[in-house]
Amino acid sequence: MLVFGLAVLLGGIGREKQTFNRTAIGANTSMLFLAVVALVMPAIFDLAVFGRLEEKGEMIEQLSFWTAAVLLVSYFASLVFTFRTHKDVFRGESHHTPVLGRGVAITILTFATLFVALASEILVGQIEFVTKSLGWTELFVGLVIVATVGNAAEHSTAVMMARKNKMDLALNIAVGSSTQIALFVAPLLVMVSQLMPSAMSLVFHPLEIAAVIFSVGVVTLVSQDGETNWFEGLQLLSVYVILGVFFYFLP
Amino acid sequence: MLVFGLAVLLGGIGREKQTFNRTAIGANTSMLFLAVVALVMPAIFDLAVFGRLEEKGEMIEQLSFWTAAVLLVSYFASLVFTFRTHKDVFRGESHHTPVLGRGVAITILTFATLFVALASEILVGQIEFVTKSLGWTELFVGLVIVATVGNAAEHSTAVMMARKNKMDLALNIAVGSSTQIALFVAPLLVMVSQLMPSAMSLVFHPLEIAAVIFSVGVVTLVSQDGETNWFEGLQLLSVYVILGVFFYFLP
Amino acid sequence: MLVFGLAVLLGGIGREKQTFNRTAIGANTSMLFLAVVALVMPAIFDLAVFGRLEEKGEMIEQLSFWTAAVLLVSYFASLVFTFRTHKDVFRGESHHTPVLGRGVAITILTFATLFVALASEILVGQIEFVTKSLGWTELFVGLVIVATVGNAAEHSTAVMMARKNKMDLALNIAVGSSTQIALFVAPLLVMVSQLMPSAMSLVFHPLEIAAVIFSVGVVTLVSQDGETNWFEGLQLLSVYVILGVFFYFLP
Repeated sequence: MLVFGLAVLLGGIGREKQTFNRTAIGANTSMLFLAVVALVMPAIFDLAVFGRLEEKGEMIEQLSFWTAAVLLVSYFASLVFTFRTHKDVFRGESHHTPVLGRGVAITILTFATLFVALASEILVGQIEFVTKSLGWTELFVGLVIVATVGNAAEHSTAVMMARKNKMDLALNIAVGSSTQIALFVAPLLVMVSQLMPSAMSLVFHPLEIAAVIFSVGVVTLVSQDGETNWFEGLQLLSVYVILGVFFYFLP
Repeated sequence: MLVFGLAVLLGGIGREKQTFNRTAIGANTSMLFLAVVALVMPAIFDLAVFGRLEEKGEMIEQLSFWTAAVLLVSYFASLVFTFRTHKDVFRGESHHTPVLGRGVAITILTFATLFVALASEILVGQIEFVTKSLGWTELFVGLVIVATVGNAAEHSTAVMMARKNKMDLALNIAVGSSTQIALFVAPLLVMVSQLMPSAMSLVFHPLEIAAVIFSVGVVTLVSQDGETNWFEGLQLLSVYVILGVFFYFLP
Repeated sequence: MLVFGLAVLLGGIGREKQTFNRTAIGANTSMLFLAVVALVMPAIFDLAVFGRLEEKGEMIEQLSFWTAAVLLVSYFASLVFTFRTHKDVFRGESHHTPVLGRGVAITILTFATLFVALASEILVGQIEFVTKSLGWTELFVGLVIVATVGNAAEHSTAVMMARKNKMDLALNIAVGSSTQIALFVAPLLVMVSQLMPSAMSLVFHPLEIAAVIFSVGVVTLVSQDGETNWFEGLQLLSVYVILGVFFYFLP
């Protein structure tokens, strides 16, 4: 959300409005909504059946398994949607002829990825050191600081694209990475963990759930009309800051 | 929601997108939103005042009565809206001249209704037998299986209309039946039950409430822009399956 | 919301639909969403950390302080947005040349404000007397009756503008006053109260929180498509009446 807000804010400065394709962003927001359902239902189930949160039993494990399966199916369908049936909608702005050979491109991509991963690793390492001396809680560091610094490369690309008014690309980067984690990485972890002695479930802290709901809500609200302006970017950042403040104070 | 998802998914296959009139679907989603408010408020009231759910007292009865009255007024207003002031918006696609006389049409309709009702009754009876041998809970059967099988006629019509790209009609069937139950059947039951010794109230299970909120949310999200595609249909079905999984495991 | 509903309902009678600028109303609804986040997060924080609501401690005070600061920043940014970068969007309908000199206008405005304030004061005073004899609770009177009668001048202006099909102006009055209270008056009170012995926090009654969420939800739902009709106005009023019924019965 930070990326999205920054991209919209900085992209919107000096322009009356920026437009983008609603079909693409609509697919992304409906996937995020699905993730919210998958996130909230176990919590409500726990509260309703056991009367308290973070109950972990065989029932929750099975629920998590099936929910994860639905999310994975939905993720693979989104790949078909993006690269097959509606690829023209998503390609949109980038009809460039390639200037690099395939081999060269893959080599550069590999080295660049390794470099960014290494840089992120060093950054995150440094952060741990800094935060311990500042007395920040682990949850705050994990959810806010690491998420911000660790994805620095992604963030700067999205903001740069937004400055060039390539909003479709910017929003896809900004929202796409969240979608990927929610609908692919997390469910995969759940399914793999079923094979291990202590299975991972999809039950989260209420504050995390609220944060996800509000994030998806504000992204939907801002992106639904296919237009953004700097003020909407600022609103996204404001929601982000308020959520950050609460995580900062959480014991 | 199953109907809606199936209609959008099957209608969207082979087409880039399907469009429909936003005024008609907007009226339906705002009515569903009203139903959500009427559903959630008693639960919050119970929690806030008595500290727990499913408290039934004279106060809740009175609340249910007045809420039901508002819903009924809203339902009758929607009839005026649909058949009087904005009938052109809803008619849209069906400017056919009638090919049957009024008397014949009513006779056919009466027999067809009786036949479908009988068929549904038999189906539901069979389901009870099947589900008992499969060990499914009554809640799961009532909410998921009976709702699916009992409305089979309606469902197939909606899906057929969607395949013919008559989305306005398909969506009206799919969403309209929910609206009718939420804003007409349920409030009427509440009001009639006031005359009996044990009045029915509008207090529901938290999981049911969550399911309704999410259903209305995803329908609104998908339909708000006046366009659908097969991927949005799949998202609707995914939400439906996740909710179904939770009801299946509910003890 | 009452104003908004009345304006949309009365403005919509006799017209098929009324249109308005989505950028302006979008900015307003995203501000209201921000206010909802600021309102709900303290409650969830309380529930998650202390296990119950209305806990007031130093931590909540600090949280309220920072949240209020973000809201104020957002409010001032909205002034820049409205009167600087996007003033054409908001001005829209009112390209009249002024017919009064500045001095005369200020004098009239001052007297009119004093008169309306006095009239409201008298009205509210009368209400207290009437309500006591009717046995209404203080919360119901404060939230529903005073809000309705105290803003009578504002309400009538919004409804009049809607009747003249000047929907942009009508919606700005209807939604703008809520935005102003949520993002300017309330945060300012919180910040000023920090200087006093007993600081005011942003923790509210669950029913109030639900009411605000539903109000913002229905306003967003109705206004998002840039069109309104009389039925949407009635839906707004229905939500308002249901919420009013619950506040009426709250002990």
